[in-house]
Amino acid sequence: MLKARYEKRGPVPQDVIEAVSVDAPELGEGEVLVEVLAAPINPSDVLTLTGDYGTLPPLPAIGGNEGVGRVAELGPNASGVEKGQTVLLPVGAGTWSTHVTAAAKDLIPLPGEADPKQLSMMTINPPTAILLLEQFVDLKEGDWVIQNAANSGVGGYLMQIAAQRGIRTVNVVRRESAVAGVEEQGGDVTLVDGPDLHKRVKEATGGAAIKLGIDAVGGQSTDHIASCLTEGAPVVNYGMMSGEPCQMSPANVVFRDVSLKGFWLARWFSKASKEDQMKIYGQVTQQIASGKLKAKIAAEYDVSQIKDAVAAAASGERDGKILVVPQH
Amino acid sequence: MLKARYEKRGPVPQDVIEAVSVDAPELGEGEVLVEVLAAPINPSDVLTLTGDYGTLPPLPAIGGNEGVGRVAELGPNASGVEKGQTVLLPVGAGTWSTHVTAAAKDLIPLPGEADPKQLSMMTINPPTAILLLEQFVDLKEGDWVIQNAANSGVGGYLMQIAAQRGIRTVNVVRRESAVAGVEEQGGDVTLVDGPDLHKRVKEATGGAAIKLGIDAVGGQSTDHIASCLTEGAPVVNYGMMSGEPCQMSPANVVFRDVSLKGFWLARWFSKASKEDQMKIYGQVTQQIASGKLKAKIAAEYDVSQIKDAVAAAASGERDGKILVVPQH
Repeated sequence: MLKARYEKRGPVPQDVIEAVSVDAPELGEGEVLVEVLAAPINPSDVLTLTGDYGTLPPLPAIGGNEGVGRVAELGPNASGVEKGQTVLLPVGAGTWSTHVTAAAKDLIPLPGEADPKQLSMMTINPPTAILLLEQFVDLKEGDWVIQNAANSGVGGYLMQIAAQRGIRTVNVVRRESAVAGVEEQGGDVTLVDGPDLHKRVKEATGGAAIKLGIDAVGGQSTDHIASCLTEGAPVVNYGMMSGEPCQMSPANVVFRDVSLKGFWLARWFSKASKEDQMKIYGQVTQQIASGKLKAKIAAEYDVSQIKDAVAAAASGERDGKILVVPQH
Repeated sequence: MLKARYEKRGPVPQDVIEAVSVDAPELGEGEVLVEVLAAPINPSDVLTLTGDYGTLPPLPAIGGNEGVGRVAELGPNASGVEKGQTVLLPVGAGTWSTHVTAAAKDLIPLPGEADPKQLSMMTINPPTAILLLEQFVDLKEGDWVIQNAANSGVGGYLMQIAAQRGIRTVNVVRRESAVAGVEEQGGDVTLVDGPDLHKRVKEATGGAAIKLGIDAVGGQSTDHIASCLTEGAPVVNYGMMSGEPCQMSPANVVFRDVSLKGFWLARWFSKASKEDQMKIYGQVTQQIASGKLKAKIAAEYDVSQIKDAVAAAASGERDGKILVVPQH
């Protein structure tokens, strides 16, 4: 078995992680051995390796927070899942591995006929996209929102979910070469970021009131989003792709009453009722299984190639998610 | 009569304004001639001269938004005030003048025995300080707040009002030489700004939960304030003394749920009921008249010295408010 392990954190994420060979574990009471089918590398995983994330696991650790697998072996008294079944691995399971050991009760059965690669990305990005659209502004059909990092995993899901709900999106990217990929995913307007963004947004939307701004970039990009919003609307930040703090001019904050809030899925998880969590995951599973919601995949890597995989995920120039797809 | 007039806006505020001599006006129906006793130069006045404020009067314009005067002459059918009475001039009256003409109904009679210089600063800074303390967090006795620009007009009032209510303040300034002046005004803790502010605040307050952050500086100072707050608390920005946009790190916004909001007195005015406005101004008048609330005055200038006065007000190094005190 191979696992992607790191013993320290550091500024170059691919330098701290490596594939290590481990012995097959002895399964304990109620435990299950799962063959990993696919596991994505999210921006939050990269920040965990560099030490910049909001919570950091104790070291040494195995990388990978979400993923999908197939039940390979049941330990004593393990019940609720069957051998061969496709399951969702629990968050933080160390999914960049050929195999994961988990308690049977923590595995969520998934439809076996659905694409496991698409399902492997369901735990983090799609609920983030849904909650960004639901938790801050009461959006109605026909309302406009604006987001940057529109070519990110969350960005793609958000665009699709908004379109399903009749909410219109302005999608902002940082380079011209990302425009075509975003337009394929069906957003209403796609633009390249810049200091005059608010003017181009005004033209493209016919001066529509934009009620919610979503920022995963930080730096001046936060203020560019803020300048596009209608008076009193919030910018919600959920990422720091530029590595820079969010900037908001007093012209927006004071004179136009634009606020800046943060969204962190981990905090939502810690506070949301089991019922609310189930509701979101029910929606997401159904939509991904039926193909109504999907993410672009830029490249796939085996666990043995974890350094290349992490380097690709940390690069700003990719078009889609990097997946770890272990060879079995 | 002298008035401080400007015909254009520009980056050096003292360059655009000058004292001009005007003829005594013919008083119209219900009008009153008021001799100005004192009028402050606020940061918002400086931003109005440079063109950076949220609302800008049509040009040419007379400078000065607030002030106190003495009724010198009543026009035909002017009633409600008497000759010799001390009155509050209406907001935006062009108070950097030896005399102002106003409608009698727009003048608010003030206690004649109170200090007109202190009363001249009552319209803008004290309500700002009160509303910053009241509108964002439900503060209880014993709670902590932190503010920067603590040696500003609003900063001084906020410290005094908080102390009256048993709310404890951490007061941040940008230079060591401002510490003593702030300590005189009775804040609980006074510190010089810096990247390690949160550590020094933690020490000085015994690790108290700080429930509200107040920022009038912008730039990295906003994030320094944010780092001092308890999880989920807001930073409220009401000024831009650094001239830089507010910065907030995702570590604060996303992982610690600190938000950034703006406060603008002009917006509050436009939305608050007449009753709420009267309530605040009643409090403020009483407290200033009785000497319970006061501001430091750095220097006084005649209208003829308006260029020097504005230059002094625009400088970051003063300790107290610059007042225009016309010679009669």
